[in-house]
Amino acid sequence: MEPLRSFDDLTIGQELTFGEVVLTREAILDFGHKWDPQYFHTDEEAAKQSVYGGLIASGLHTQCACFQAIMRTGFYERTSIGGVGMDVRWLAPVFPDDHIRVTGKVQELIPSRSRTDRGVVKTLYTGTRAQDGQVVIDMLITHFLRR
Amino acid sequence: MEPLRSFDDLTIGQELTFGEVVLTREAILDFGHKWDPQYFHTDEEAAKQSVYGGLIASGLHTQCACFQAIMRTGFYERTSIGGVGMDVRWLAPVFPDDHIRVTGKVQELIPSRSRTDRGVVKTLYTGTRAQDGQVVIDMLITHFLRR
Repeated sequence: MEPLRSFDDLTIGQELTFGEVVLTREAILDFGHKWDPQYFHTDEEAAKQSVYGGLIASGLHTQCACFQAIMRTGFYERTSIGGVGMDVRWLAPVFPDDHIRVTGKVQELIPSRSRTDRGVVKTLYTGTRAQDGQVVIDMLITHFLRR
Repeated sequence: MEPLRSFDDLTIGQELTFGEVVLTREAILDFGHKWDPQYFHTDEEAAKQSVYGGLIASGLHTQCACFQAIMRTGFYERTSIGGVGMDVRWLAPVFPDDHIRVTGKVQELIPSRSRTDRGVVKTLYTGTRAQDGQVVIDMLITHFLRR
């Protein structure tokens, strides 16, 4: 993926693809113990009694992994100044070894009035399970990019 | 902190306190390399040239650490069924060794119509830097709790 050169090179409705992420059982347990110690993220046996019927990834884990998939492409490495906010929706549980495809669609482009060297972009990123097409996560990210 | 016994024991406007989190330089670099490889989270020297003037924590890191501070108290361990969504705002950069106080305020309580054993709660969690009272993060979390 070629790095984006400027905020001005994005267009509303533009679609972006960022490859796939897979959360292994070990990664799910590790993340759960570290950041989200709820039994359905940390204990495979106990998780069988949960409403999910088994171990699932922390929603924060899915969020971090999809974000990492975006950043590792280098697409934003020349332009990113930093994030303002993120509205995350967890739409379905993520199980070990699910393959999640990460895509994005540019929603809004707002040039800064006070700082002519930057603009705000709102992009809706989506994580879709490859096996069945189920959307598992949506993330509407608002961030500053250089012009 | 005594674990919450039921969704019905929460009240709108109720204030919650969850102690403090501190993100060390090492933790910031480790998280940045793993989940958010932008230079102002991964390279102390390069970060000095960024708009922040130095290394700052990934917003995802602040989010995960504040969430972990909430969960480690065990307050939700009897009632939590899982999260629906989270609206995060990063209001100020977090620097190494900042002490962040984590509090919450219950915003909405919506008993489920279809499932009488649960309800949806929306709580606004806030991370405030102890040194100067600067709010660094807001997280409006929507989650299901047992009744």
